[in-house]
Amino acid sequence: MQIVEEKIILGIDPGTTVMGYGIIRCLSGNPSLVTLGVLKLSGYSGQALKLKRIFERTLSLIDEFHPHEVAIEAPFYGKNVQSMLKLGRAQGVAMAAAMYRSVPICEYSPRKIKQSITGNGNASKEQVAAMLMRLMSIPQTPETFDATDGLAVAVCHFFQQSPVQSEKTYSSWKAFLNDNPDRLK
Amino acid sequence: MQIVEEKIILGIDPGTTVMGYGIIRCLSGNPSLVTLGVLKLSGYSGQALKLKRIFERTLSLIDEFHPHEVAIEAPFYGKNVQSMLKLGRAQGVAMAAAMYRSVPICEYSPRKIKQSITGNGNASKEQVAAMLMRLMSIPQTPETFDATDGLAVAVCHFFQQSPVQSEKTYSSWKAFLNDNPDRLK
Repeated sequence: MQIVEEKIILGIDPGTTVMGYGIIRCLSGNPSLVTLGVLKLSGYSGQALKLKRIFERTLSLIDEFHPHEVAIEAPFYGKNVQSMLKLGRAQGVAMAAAMYRSVPICEYSPRKIKQSITGNGNASKEQVAAMLMRLMSIPQTPETFDATDGLAVAVCHFFQQSPVQSEKTYSSWKAFLNDNPDRLK
Repeated sequence: MQIVEEKIILGIDPGTTVMGYGIIRCLSGNPSLVTLGVLKLSGYSGQALKLKRIFERTLSLIDEFHPHEVAIEAPFYGKNVQSMLKLGRAQGVAMAAAMYRSVPICEYSPRKIKQSITGNGNASKEQVAAMLMRLMSIPQTPETFDATDGLAVAVCHFFQQSPVQSEKTYSSWKAFLNDNPDRLK
């Protein structure tokens, strides 16, 4: 008898104007889409209110979908110290929500995520989104790439894990598809 | 009959190696020290664990002392984008803890805090600490300046408020002492 193990991963791309997120469910090493979406922050006046919304949305996503792990897109470099401080705060409040619910957090650089999804660390947002849509059977084009950016972090995190019932670790879609050619419809 | 109004202010200086904090209690516009301290973070391996500790300590301070407002020292400029990202995260998790308990947050720049306490925006940490110790009747020299830095934010925030039972707003110790000469022992 095969024991089916479930893992739910919440991926977050915590920006200062839009937060993107995606949730995947992995059953015995096979990922499928649960949901993806964005939190638009440009309508809120003041940074404190934006941070509050990021915190609240992250907490509500955790409470609704009960992810086993949270993966965050975390750029480590930028040109502008002001924007890095704001980005750090956005990351910090999202991480705090996960910490508060005792959900482990992993961070991935944008390059690592692109590399993992498309095989190319310099891939465009369009390329990442197109690959995710095909492989996760997303029925319609998301409104913005921010949602697929969030989903991409979750999928990247999945690839860093050893699938249950298998000793393999898939480091990218390419490796995954070699063993699962039927996933490419 | 004079109605005594109480306000408790938690001041935080959320650094990435040490977090300093101070709590003051204002009774009808007169501030007094409740406590001050530091959370040393250098012993924790990994940034995630440090952020978790900042979040937990801020939350526990709020739950123990029930501040009406939280004031945070928030430098807005720095030379290094990496350190600004880390600092932003530390600020973010401390702010998230206050948000989670619905405590309003105010931010002050280091210059504003120094100006408010000593009358000089370029004052040294020693000068700020010495002034706070005299005026808040702190019995012994704190172990590090990080604790007085946290306290300084709380006192700065106090000066930005209109004292209860008075229409005056004290913008600094100097203005406060002019009206309360007995506070300088």
